[in-house]
Amino acid sequence: MGIVTLTTDFGSLYPASMKGVILSIDENAKIVDISHSIPQADIRAAAFALFTVVEYFPKGTVHIAVVDPGVGTDRKAIVIHSGGHYFVGPDNGLMMPAARKLGKIDVFEIGHESLPDDISATFHGRDVFARVGAHIVKGLDVQKLAHGTDDFVDLAFHHAHVSNDVVSAEVLYIDDFGNIVINVPAEVIMGISSFGTTFDLDGMDVPFMDTYARTDPGSLLFLVGSHGYLELAINQGNAAQMLGLHNGARMSITLPIIEKSK
Amino acid sequence: MGIVTLTTDFGSLYPASMKGVILSIDENAKIVDISHSIPQADIRAAAFALFTVVEYFPKGTVHIAVVDPGVGTDRKAIVIHSGGHYFVGPDNGLMMPAARKLGKIDVFEIGHESLPDDISATFHGRDVFARVGAHIVKGLDVQKLAHGTDDFVDLAFHHAHVSNDVVSAEVLYIDDFGNIVINVPAEVIMGISSFGTTFDLDGMDVPFMDTYARTDPGSLLFLVGSHGYLELAINQGNAAQMLGLHNGARMSITLPIIEKSK
Amino acid sequence: MGIVTLTTDFGSLYPASMKGVILSIDENAKIVDISHSIPQADIRAAAFALFTVVEYFPKGTVHIAVVDPGVGTDRKAIVIHSGGHYFVGPDNGLMMPAARKLGKIDVFEIGHESLPDDISATFHGRDVFARVGAHIVKGLDVQKLAHGTDDFVDLAFHHAHVSNDVVSAEVLYIDDFGNIVINVPAEVIMGISSFGTTFDLDGMDVPFMDTYARTDPGSLLFLVGSHGYLELAINQGNAAQMLGLHNGARMSITLPIIEKSK
Repeated sequence: MGIVTLTTDFGSLYPASMKGVILSIDENAKIVDISHSIPQADIRAAAFALFTVVEYFPKGTVHIAVVDPGVGTDRKAIVIHSGGHYFVGPDNGLMMPAARKLGKIDVFEIGHESLPDDISATFHGRDVFARVGAHIVKGLDVQKLAHGTDDFVDLAFHHAHVSNDVVSAEVLYIDDFGNIVINVPAEVIMGISSFGTTFDLDGMDVPFMDTYARTDPGSLLFLVGSHGYLELAINQGNAAQMLGLHNGARMSITLPIIEKSK
Repeated sequence: MGIVTLTTDFGSLYPASMKGVILSIDENAKIVDISHSIPQADIRAAAFALFTVVEYFPKGTVHIAVVDPGVGTDRKAIVIHSGGHYFVGPDNGLMMPAARKLGKIDVFEIGHESLPDDISATFHGRDVFARVGAHIVKGLDVQKLAHGTDDFVDLAFHHAHVSNDVVSAEVLYIDDFGNIVINVPAEVIMGISSFGTTFDLDGMDVPFMDTYARTDPGSLLFLVGSHGYLELAINQGNAAQMLGLHNGARMSITLPIIEKSK
Repeated sequence: MGIVTLTTDFGSLYPASMKGVILSIDENAKIVDISHSIPQADIRAAAFALFTVVEYFPKGTVHIAVVDPGVGTDRKAIVIHSGGHYFVGPDNGLMMPAARKLGKIDVFEIGHESLPDDISATFHGRDVFARVGAHIVKGLDVQKLAHGTDDFVDLAFHHAHVSNDVVSAEVLYIDDFGNIVINVPAEVIMGISSFGTTFDLDGMDVPFMDTYARTDPGSLLFLVGSHGYLELAINQGNAAQMLGLHNGARMSITLPIIEKSK
């Protein structure tokens, strides 16, 4: 009873045909939606979503991830094996951060000869990736339908630049609360600051706290999010909407440097 | 371990009580959401959604489909059997295109005597259709709770009128990308045109391509969608929003006629 | 093969890590989403959602419900046992109406000593409640990880005040159709009125009917909703949007008193 996860920008409807395909091949597959509301064609947002949740799934899970603006062109279709998990999707970098988080990666290119003839030009989620993922979760050896390759698109989250007390950062992801995930890893921010201090965000004073309820409802705060990155949030509010920020937006944060004792 | 699919305009929450009812009757049922975000009371949109995905599910699947503006009136409750699949829902045409796609249909009316007494006037999805669907997926013979009938509401997708080089078409469905599905079947458009040509859409030049990435991001294109119909889309954008189109909207497309060799 | 339900204000993405945690502990768990689109931090709306669907799930179901503005503070984590169901979540009242609906409640506080060390300050849905819920559905005795307590936050739906022919009411919940659930139980309204009469809503005449289709599309009506409360709706329309009402909004309804024969 293997698990198959789905991460797409498809909204409703289209994921259902992927599920039909998967269950037609392996009626015992357990399908878990990670998200189908990734912003359209936003490969980095999808990469962050998968990266955030991947480690909570057990070994043997097959992750099908399809944000695929290049569908129907000659971009490759790949399978990645890492830490006992499998990743199936287009070769555009989306699965890389999640796969690398789990350990050493092995990348396989899905051969055209392994694919049926009736593939649409616009929906490989259904016609290619759902099929391949279902066969893998059912136990098929990946080498039966794909061959190892070193030629693939990579993607890594660029981390903020820290220079003395100034952090030049970027929005990595905006969640459904409107909380803004910033490209500063927890260990970096905790290495130079502490909860209870106040940061300067482009001229605004914003407290750095351990959780939302440390400020009044409606107040802005920085915290370390459950994904392991610095987060800018409004307690019980929508920070992205209030600040007008979107994925990739830049910001400058000035911190009081804390002298850490060893 | 049978599959039950759900297609509704219920949004969140209400589908959960249907799932509770189903699992209380058949704890082994595998429930797959097709969509719960059909536009409210839009029977044709629901019909297209179910029609699009039905063939990807295995035989034995029970499809419960409830967009039901007539709930609590004397509209009938029906079961359709077609191609080894079952369809359960209100008698308003919604399930017809999907059922006919799978083969010869047999329609059954659910008798009042088969139903429990505690039925609400406003939520037959939970009180009637979930129960009936669950009993069918668990193996109950349909004839035990419904009797054959020839008296039912039919619904078919009206196809575009083609006259020489002018196609008078209509919007069938708008997906969550804002891609516009048009009532021109793939075989009709491929019979009179070819990828790489340019169509005239109410005065605008729009290329006809095999996939999204053949145009620049933000550009409008026609293509054949994965559902087998002509589609009007913006590469990485929202065509329905940009053009202000909605289900049922009409458009006139002029094509360069291609002389097809036999 | 126990059932675990999830009720949160998390939107997409975060529920997936809860599901990964649950399936890592009990690969046979059947997970059902009740809603992940509860308005942010709206404990009462979540309470009503869970209250509405709980009775349709079979005994043995574990309901994890996390709308948790106090996460990371010293609010307690609790388990409630009632009518053969289990409820797992923060001690803020959210689970009380559903639990009390099923019978006599037993409340347990999850001890700190039962919890692992790697708990984040901001996501107890994943780090505490998913783990506890999964162990319970797998068969762990609640007393192994929690101890009985009488000290917990309670929450009950305040019912409308009825004085002669005037009902001073309040919005309990707004569903995804924009239908407005009002804090007047079905038995109260049916005790003083009958379908077919007309109510006065802040100066507007609104008919009281048994189902939506008794009025023209676009018309306002009162009815008894499938949740057992008075409901204000627009047939095939969005009443909350049209009237500008939100959770907690107040309204005054004047009824023609019906002399009920015993």
